[in-house]
Amino acid sequence: MSTNIKADGFAPRADKNTVELGDELCPKFDEHGLIAAAVTDFETGELLMVGYMNAESLRRTIETGEAWYWSRSRQEYWKKGGTSGQVQEVLEIRTDCDQDAIWLRVKVHGNGATCHVGYRSCFFRKVNSNNSGEVWLEKAEAAPVYDPQEVYGNKP
Amino acid sequence: MSTNIKADGFAPRADKNTVELGDELCPKFDEHGLIAAAVTDFETGELLMVGYMNAESLRRTIETGEAWYWSRSRQEYWKKGGTSGQVQEVLEIRTDCDQDAIWLRVKVHGNGATCHVGYRSCFFRKVNSNNSGEVWLEKAEAAPVYDPQEVYGNKP
Repeated sequence: MSTNIKADGFAPRADKNTVELGDELCPKFDEHGLIAAAVTDFETGELLMVGYMNAESLRRTIETGEAWYWSRSRQEYWKKGGTSGQVQEVLEIRTDCDQDAIWLRVKVHGNGATCHVGYRSCFFRKVNSNNSGEVWLEKAEAAPVYDPQEVYGNKP
Repeated sequence: MSTNIKADGFAPRADKNTVELGDELCPKFDEHGLIAAAVTDFETGELLMVGYMNAESLRRTIETGEAWYWSRSRQEYWKKGGTSGQVQEVLEIRTDCDQDAIWLRVKVHGNGATCHVGYRSCFFRKVNSNNSGEVWLEKAEAAPVYDPQEVYGNKP
């Protein structure tokens, strides 16, 4: 069954079986009206960022084919790349069994980076640990793609 | 700087520069004490699930090398695969710039599926749409890996 998101918005939440196995998109937004979106590079599978969408940003993403989020820190709509040029062309959108998360598979435009501190992925650090319980972070990307200070004054 | 998570737990949140660029793991848990974890297959980059961890489940994941979550629906610790055998061997853990999300890169054991309804990934459906604004879901995996009814009575 299809829903018309221009006319009706998203379908209301249905019974468990329909949500988990059906063909109707009925996303579950949390108490803040948000749903988590994990964003991976379409070619490499690298996780680039995790963002949050409200219904309107999800609708804009589906309609325009470019990723829109809701900025929790700035409390405003945020088209990724609107300032930086790091626009995410959305090649595939998926949702999970209980429809409380979104997966965007994207091609990154502009300088090819996603992170506002200059790296390709926001997940540019890995967690290291030893048997004594010591934990620390280590760079997983050799070098940043760009210098945020030079490009846009370190604004996301 | 390393933190001893056996002795001291995770490091407290630090200033923006330290959080974003430093080598100290100081995860930001939300108002429910949780952090989102996106889980991808180490080999293919396929997004398998998005789960939530509290500090203790993140600590267990780091210490044991197998993924532990906090089940929001059951309000209890949840070792993935404890019932199903679909244990996630964690080959790499990353965090993002503001340290409010976790990326687990895993190898799935057992029957190789992750989703409780039988598919390899919980994200087994993609969102289709047309220019009129109609939206519907379509299977992105040809067939389930297993029949949950046969294997463990459809319990996650």
